[in-house]
Amino acid sequence: MYGLIGRMKAAPGQREALIALLLDDVGAMPGCYSYVVARDPGDGDAIWITEVWDNAASHRASLSLPQVQAAIAKAKPLIAGFDSHVETEPVGGHGLPAVG
Amino acid sequence: MYGLIGRMKAAPGQREALIALLLDDVGAMPGCYSYVVARDPGDGDAIWITEVWDNAASHRASLSLPQVQAAIAKAKPLIAGFDSHVETEPVGGHGLPAVG
Repeated sequence: MYGLIGRMKAAPGQREALIALLLDDVGAMPGCYSYVVARDPGDGDAIWITEVWDNAASHRASLSLPQVQAAIAKAKPLIAGFDSHVETEPVGGHGLPAVG
Repeated sequence: MYGLIGRMKAAPGQREALIALLLDDVGAMPGCYSYVVARDPGDGDAIWITEVWDNAASHRASLSLPQVQAAIAKAKPLIAGFDSHVETEPVGGHGLPAVG
């Protein structure tokens, strides 16, 4: 599996609007097991996104889907920047499909 | 919802053994929506754990379950330390139960 853990900063005052865009239903995302959008309780502009995919290629491919590109275009003006971005290798756990 | 994102370091050479313990089936964890254990590809001793719970009380209560306490006792000797530990407020996403 392939995982991402990242923190982004919304433009001042735009966190809730950005979260709403990030949670817009973009339809099927092949290979996406988990995608969680969370507020950072310690920073009113910060958002954590954690993702689990079957593999890195599925994540990469998702970025080319027309509906995902449209969502990114809408979100971009509300994003001030990215603080941290980590790739991981999820091994297992709870709340994932039963995969090897 | 209540979320946790943390990175721990295994004692040298003990990462796979520690991951196996972290993934041991501890039975029902009331209120646990997601619990993902991942290797850090950039550090052979590091493990990321990301969690989503219905609320902080459920997470706290889980730490008192006898089977969880037994798992913690087995894991402790294999843990060198915790690098980072962040609480989050998950709002929604994909792969979570349909909750408000």
